[in-house]
Amino acid sequence: MVEDKLKGYRSFLRELLNKVGAEIGDEIELRYDNKRIRGILLPRSELEDEWHIVLKLSNGYNVGIRYRKDLSIKIIEKKKAVLAAVKRESLKIREDLPKVHILGVGGTIASRVDYTTGAVRSVYTPEELAEMFPELIDIASIKTKIIMNKYSEHLRASDWERIAEEVAKSINEGVDGVIVMHGTDTMHYTSAALSFALQDLPVPVILVGSQRSSDRPSSDAALNLISAVYFASHGPIAEVMIAMHENTSDNSVVLHKGTRARKNHTSRRDAFQTIDDLPYARVTNGTKIEILVNEYRRRDKNRKLKLKANFSDKVALLKFYPNFDPEIINFLVDRGYKGIVIEGTGLGHIGEYTFDAIRYAVSNGVLVFMTSQCIWGRTNLRVYDTGRYLLKLGVIPLENMLPEVAFVKLMWCFGQEDDPERVKNLMLVNIAGEITPISTPVEVM
Amino acid sequence: MVEDKLKGYRSFLRELLNKVGAEIGDEIELRYDNKRIRGILLPRSELEDEWHIVLKLSNGYNVGIRYRKDLSIKIIEKKKAVLAAVKRESLKIREDLPKVHILGVGGTIASRVDYTTGAVRSVYTPEELAEMFPELIDIASIKTKIIMNKYSEHLRASDWERIAEEVAKSINEGVDGVIVMHGTDTMHYTSAALSFALQDLPVPVILVGSQRSSDRPSSDAALNLISAVYFASHGPIAEVMIAMHENTSDNSVVLHKGTRARKNHTSRRDAFQTIDDLPYARVTNGTKIEILVNEYRRRDKNRKLKLKANFSDKVALLKFYPNFDPEIINFLVDRGYKGIVIEGTGLGHIGEYTFDAIRYAVSNGVLVFMTSQCIWGRTNLRVYDTGRYLLKLGVIPLENMLPEVAFVKLMWCFGQEDDPERVKNLMLVNIAGEITPISTPVEVM
Repeated sequence: MVEDKLKGYRSFLRELLNKVGAEIGDEIELRYDNKRIRGILLPRSELEDEWHIVLKLSNGYNVGIRYRKDLSIKIIEKKKAVLAAVKRESLKIREDLPKVHILGVGGTIASRVDYTTGAVRSVYTPEELAEMFPELIDIASIKTKIIMNKYSEHLRASDWERIAEEVAKSINEGVDGVIVMHGTDTMHYTSAALSFALQDLPVPVILVGSQRSSDRPSSDAALNLISAVYFASHGPIAEVMIAMHENTSDNSVVLHKGTRARKNHTSRRDAFQTIDDLPYARVTNGTKIEILVNEYRRRDKNRKLKLKANFSDKVALLKFYPNFDPEIINFLVDRGYKGIVIEGTGLGHIGEYTFDAIRYAVSNGVLVFMTSQCIWGRTNLRVYDTGRYLLKLGVIPLENMLPEVAFVKLMWCFGQEDDPERVKNLMLVNIAGEITPISTPVEVM
Repeated sequence: MVEDKLKGYRSFLRELLNKVGAEIGDEIELRYDNKRIRGILLPRSELEDEWHIVLKLSNGYNVGIRYRKDLSIKIIEKKKAVLAAVKRESLKIREDLPKVHILGVGGTIASRVDYTTGAVRSVYTPEELAEMFPELIDIASIKTKIIMNKYSEHLRASDWERIAEEVAKSINEGVDGVIVMHGTDTMHYTSAALSFALQDLPVPVILVGSQRSSDRPSSDAALNLISAVYFASHGPIAEVMIAMHENTSDNSVVLHKGTRARKNHTSRRDAFQTIDDLPYARVTNGTKIEILVNEYRRRDKNRKLKLKANFSDKVALLKFYPNFDPEIINFLVDRGYKGIVIEGTGLGHIGEYTFDAIRYAVSNGVLVFMTSQCIWGRTNLRVYDTGRYLLKLGVIPLENMLPEVAFVKLMWCFGQEDDPERVKNLMLVNIAGEITPISTPVEVM
């Protein structure tokens, strides 16, 4: 296949770029209306319009300049970006260090624009990772594998199954820890899924992402990945965790519990929080581990992993709100759903105008569970009439399980069991820290 | 109608209570299995079972004792609760103070069990309020009105319309401020609804609730209500606000913006938080006001209120999650929905397996808006391919509008306008603080 040197550019702009001999990866200058703007010519995707030239500026940001009649283009340096990418040192992997596998799922972390082929590309050979994050080769003996390359919003239950199987494969090869590089959007759903699918873990399994891509000066990718690899190599806790920035300063990373984490900010580097609990640990400057909890499963390579990587599709999560249309519940019942997790208000309430639909669901054998959209705190259906009536209808409250986690767990339960009564019992038992005791160590909000 | 002295008790237990001559409101002692438990006999609702006697203990908690063969009952004091309720002092309302109307919608605040008639009862005459919260009569000249008595999870758009109309009626009578006593579960939905429905407010409109009922020792009802009435009387800000505890200590209340508040804890007294912004003000010890923002609409009784209290039913809020069933979107489109607000992941993303359904919605003239389930932070559909593709599909991002607020606003917009293009434009304009500028004053999480 011949490579398109002007990938994604069409009509007017393609002609204009062709005329001056510009190619993807060149540093060019655009001039118009007495303005000048300089940057590396980026490729475009087919989804985008034909009216913009996109440049990567020296500060790392991309900018799109719209076509206009007075636009002129000057080439500053040919193939600047590609030349930069070639200057790779050959790096040695030290076999005496702890063995860590880094599995690539996708996302912002460890991806960068490939100036020659277009779009964001995952960088995942040990050499490439070491080039981007040279500290890594002094921490662990790393093997990398790209499982898939998807933004995390596109992941489905079948992807969780594949990730769990690949993690299990690595563990069965005797590694000291596994890193999963993952987009942050649904990282807490995947961490919950892995927490249920990977039982009796012998070593740490750490999901790591970044909120800013590695080619931006404010990127959190390096510290998150280095801290995660350090913990995977030396940390004592064998659980599924999420490693992300603890706060806005760039020196500490916390390891959130896989079933108690949530992405609570669209863009901040410390977007993830542990809800109603403490994170397992803190890693400062990528080299110092502090354990923050009293109880955890200790690393033990002799422990035999149990892989239970099946998730059912016939489960839904429904957020209740004023004027909620109960026909949505009836619709799911008629579509053959086996279980519904509701995000109620407050202690776990829903409006009386939904009670008939709840009755319909329960009488058709659909399990209906209650969580709270408050996020923090515990459901309690025994305080008010509404709650007590919901109990009578057969609604099952889930303590302080997060709605997202309850949903993932219910998919997992129906992946293990067919009998609703057994699924119900499984839902009410704490399996992977998803239900914390009533006296939580901290009341963080 | 003859009053049932054993309201809600049936079969065995009713016979047993009758035999000793016990009535609702009596202090009784239950004895069984060498245990004794003493409390006031409470009535029961028809929703409940026939096997439990419910007592209010002296610490304010209710307890249910299950029928058993060895259960015996002794009367300690006849009609103890009713006698207590009769000892009312006659209280003077001072007409020289600022005029405040207190409108009752329902909820935990200012409600207590009526031991003679059953169930939780709203206490709402000025005298009753003054009896419960004697500080009030020194702050304002109060008039009270019960609009309805519903737990807030049962409220619908038609209730918002009625509340808005009643607030407008009070304002048109020339009051200095209006208090709406409201359940906390959906108080932030109602505050958003009132923020859009009541335009050009001349005086403060303050929703106030409590997380613990007034008859419990740890109740937040008194401080919340007293602070709200104080601000309604003396505060300079004429906006729709929510008055609730600022933290776990019992001395400060904050006034949250009606369109930026959220209930973020199921049970804590400081459950409400202002998201990505500062609250308008703080009231300390019910008597000291601090304004926390630079810009606000000042109180001005000459300003003419515009009442726009119409909300459309044909609007839905949908939370996206991995494995989300796109048929739910198709179902809503086929049911004639006019607009859908999606809670996407991260910056405002949804999985590619929903794109066909989005296309179907848009091609049928349904407006599809994007918000984020992260709660904090701003949507941005220009950073990643997924977002840019959603823009191409016609999805409209809503800056940092909260999902719940976006949903209420869309109902309100379709209550004002039929034309989708005008609704779209209205959604993108900041009307009542629901969109804050990009440089927010604080990055609170």
